[in-house]
Amino acid sequence: MNDRIKKLLEDLNDLDHDMAAITYTESLLGFDSMTTASKDGVSARSEVISFVSTLYFNTLINPRVDRLLKELSDVYNELDDLSKAKYNYFRREYEKISPIPVKEYADYQSLLVESSNAWEEAKNANDFSIFAPYLKKVIDTTKRFIDHRGYEGHPYNTLLNDYEPGVTVDMLDGFFEELKASIVPLVQRIQEKPKPNTSFLSNTFSIDEQEAFSLYIMESLGFRMDGGSLSESEHPFTQNMSPDDVRITTHFHENDLINPIFSTIHETGHGLYEQNISKSIGFSCLATGVSMGIHESQSRLYENNFGRNPAFWQAHMPKLKELFPNELKDISIQDFIRATNKVEPSLIRIDADEVTYPLHIMVRYELEKMLMEEDVDIQELPKLWADKYEQYVGVRPTTEAEGILQDVHWSEGLMGYFPSYALGSAYAAQFEHAMEKELSVDECLKHGDMKTLLDWLAHHIHQYGSTITPSEIIQRATGEAFNPKYFTDYLVKKYSLLYGLKE
Amino acid sequence: MNDRIKKLLEDLNDLDHDMAAITYTESLLGFDSMTTASKDGVSARSEVISFVSTLYFNTLINPRVDRLLKELSDVYNELDDLSKAKYNYFRREYEKISPIPVKEYADYQSLLVESSNAWEEAKNANDFSIFAPYLKKVIDTTKRFIDHRGYEGHPYNTLLNDYEPGVTVDMLDGFFEELKASIVPLVQRIQEKPKPNTSFLSNTFSIDEQEAFSLYIMESLGFRMDGGSLSESEHPFTQNMSPDDVRITTHFHENDLINPIFSTIHETGHGLYEQNISKSIGFSCLATGVSMGIHESQSRLYENNFGRNPAFWQAHMPKLKELFPNELKDISIQDFIRATNKVEPSLIRIDADEVTYPLHIMVRYELEKMLMEEDVDIQELPKLWADKYEQYVGVRPTTEAEGILQDVHWSEGLMGYFPSYALGSAYAAQFEHAMEKELSVDECLKHGDMKTLLDWLAHHIHQYGSTITPSEIIQRATGEAFNPKYFTDYLVKKYSLLYGLKE
Repeated sequence: MNDRIKKLLEDLNDLDHDMAAITYTESLLGFDSMTTASKDGVSARSEVISFVSTLYFNTLINPRVDRLLKELSDVYNELDDLSKAKYNYFRREYEKISPIPVKEYADYQSLLVESSNAWEEAKNANDFSIFAPYLKKVIDTTKRFIDHRGYEGHPYNTLLNDYEPGVTVDMLDGFFEELKASIVPLVQRIQEKPKPNTSFLSNTFSIDEQEAFSLYIMESLGFRMDGGSLSESEHPFTQNMSPDDVRITTHFHENDLINPIFSTIHETGHGLYEQNISKSIGFSCLATGVSMGIHESQSRLYENNFGRNPAFWQAHMPKLKELFPNELKDISIQDFIRATNKVEPSLIRIDADEVTYPLHIMVRYELEKMLMEEDVDIQELPKLWADKYEQYVGVRPTTEAEGILQDVHWSEGLMGYFPSYALGSAYAAQFEHAMEKELSVDECLKHGDMKTLLDWLAHHIHQYGSTITPSEIIQRATGEAFNPKYFTDYLVKKYSLLYGLKE
Repeated sequence: MNDRIKKLLEDLNDLDHDMAAITYTESLLGFDSMTTASKDGVSARSEVISFVSTLYFNTLINPRVDRLLKELSDVYNELDDLSKAKYNYFRREYEKISPIPVKEYADYQSLLVESSNAWEEAKNANDFSIFAPYLKKVIDTTKRFIDHRGYEGHPYNTLLNDYEPGVTVDMLDGFFEELKASIVPLVQRIQEKPKPNTSFLSNTFSIDEQEAFSLYIMESLGFRMDGGSLSESEHPFTQNMSPDDVRITTHFHENDLINPIFSTIHETGHGLYEQNISKSIGFSCLATGVSMGIHESQSRLYENNFGRNPAFWQAHMPKLKELFPNELKDISIQDFIRATNKVEPSLIRIDADEVTYPLHIMVRYELEKMLMEEDVDIQELPKLWADKYEQYVGVRPTTEAEGILQDVHWSEGLMGYFPSYALGSAYAAQFEHAMEKELSVDECLKHGDMKTLLDWLAHHIHQYGSTITPSEIIQRATGEAFNPKYFTDYLVKKYSLLYGLKE
């Protein structure tokens, strides 16, 4: 390597190091806000979050980094793979932020704080009109940023790419068409069958025992307890500080056995992805999951494909019954599985079952796409939302709180994010199909051999962190490009069996 | 105010804002390390801590700040009080760090990481020789830094001033002489009396109930629960993020009722100081306790003067007995108070009672002073330590782990810090004496009226944060300069009564 390249790589690694430290700090502030931070401390906390976000901006957007990226681009083909990946990462980040004038960027950060507050107030008051003017500003700003940044094909593509690089409106239109064609009739057929008994799930379950089971199941799935932790928060989430410090949270309810268990399994899926990123990447911005969609594929694989599978409970029901001997007396694995896979059209996305979930996403996808391509009257949104729910999910919200106001995302400027949830489920089915060529998932689950499954995932997916793209991961792990057919096949097969439908 | 001063104050406030944000970040990293952070995450965490510490250095030590401080110094008399306090704060910080060459500063940070690791290893192995070479380097570096920074009177004064501005060797020599003259004979007279019964304190006490009592007592003392939190950690500590986000920790043991309770009261004392700093200071480096000594005065006032007082338990014993009806059956307030005020010479500082505690500090004070003025052979330290323990405390360590290796402080470069612990107890007695002129502490305690006591402390001490010096606080709150006589009087009076000695 010549001296010039050596110097450029030193600068690139220094930039990566500093940006990784700043990102760690942002992550810690975020994790702390959701766990230990006090209610009244929000004002000082906002000052610090804003300081660190400015530091992020200033460290990345400056003439020195601009020059570095240009010079690296000239010698790109001479770089090793890791350095190429770092260059690509920072070029993406640079191109995402640098076209936005500093003043507009800062104003937008302030707008998001106000808009989140307005959303919370509006949701509590069940009154969209409180949030509407802020949502309009967020949408207008988002569209102006797309103008600054440019787009290919469809303006919404720019947003989709922020969360799932490579994904386009063309691809998602086809994806959701395929889902609609399979899921809508599947849901209808399920609705004609008798509903499973779920009453035993709302007995009283001691929090201490629930926590014991959460810790047991994390360890059983292969989570390294010295490389992370379990905390409680209002909504479950995963925050990685580094692959050796991955924090998952859950939320226990005394009258709910199921949501806390499956939240823990879901978040452990995210956590295992982060824990198994290759050490060779080092302390770097690349030492984290590559995209929202791939991340969600891991959490959903663990939660739904593994966790809501009867074979899994052959290994783990004894422990659950040991902790809740009276509460689960006379409950068979079959009862438990039928109850935890109950399909029922409902209004709230985060409570939705595996089958109807993608329909909730479809509503948001179509609305976001429309908002980006047309001038939609903001006052029309609640009705547009309700119409689409009625059409796809089969239920119509009667209040704004359980309709247009249910999700926090738009108030935080997260547009283009929702589709990655549905992609995650679809990727998961494709990964499971690929695993099945080399091993029997059911056999592993039945014998509690989670290590074989984790090894496969770590080898084919986790280890790469953000050094290769989502589509490269899918191609390498499954031998083909993304194909939503595996997901619809999986749903039809699983639920035909559970509900006794003819396939 | 003329435009030039206006501009200077804007720059000063910007500096203060950035430094406050960096300090908040450092505090959060520290708090997290002691609570949630994973065992294996230490490597990434160290990278981030080092990044933030470099950011602190670079934000403060640069030609722009140097010029700002010089220009402010020219117009000092025209500044308002808060701006004067900010100027004084940053001038102090600047003069502390800027004389150290950057390279030496960075090397020292690395040395402290190695030396802390070596200390831990040495303590576990009960082998001072593992730690000795690192301790020698820390001492040599500390002395070299004093050379860079300069000193008045005695080199140790520079270190003392870092933790307790205004304190000198001359003053502390007198202070410890006075303590020695009162405490050593007091301890001897107590030793001749029968020992109180403490056996009931090591029954089994459920952790859930202990936690309930900790939360109850925090609230009873006036801690705002929306402005802070209680967590668990290996060693109890308090970390303020802002006056509205003050975190205290404690450590529960199933076979120990007393240490967790008094740790919680102690840390709540620290916490109340931070919570009651005036909002008018705003988001600033000055919105925190002014010194280690004043801080420790608040924690010890709550723990010892209030908490180990029988009047206090007239108000709170009913709650404790409600939580532990069987464990505390037949235990009177008098039994409880005698047990929790047991005096006994011992080897370990952090387990020492209120009377012998200052003697532990005296050992460290004399050794640190000696190390700063002479060339002490590092190999002699364990023996010097043991000799002084025998002489002052009346017990001689037989192992290095319970002798010279017991405290973490020196391995972290904290020299000059120990005396503030003893000063804290002495300040507390002087504050209590001043309170007694305006109100009856015992009457307040007896009726659970902690608000009257807190209001006095908030008004005379807490509100100022770091805007005035420790000696100004003492002068304003008590009407006179620091006088250790109040502390020795307090000890003699309290323990004569408890142990039935003639005063």
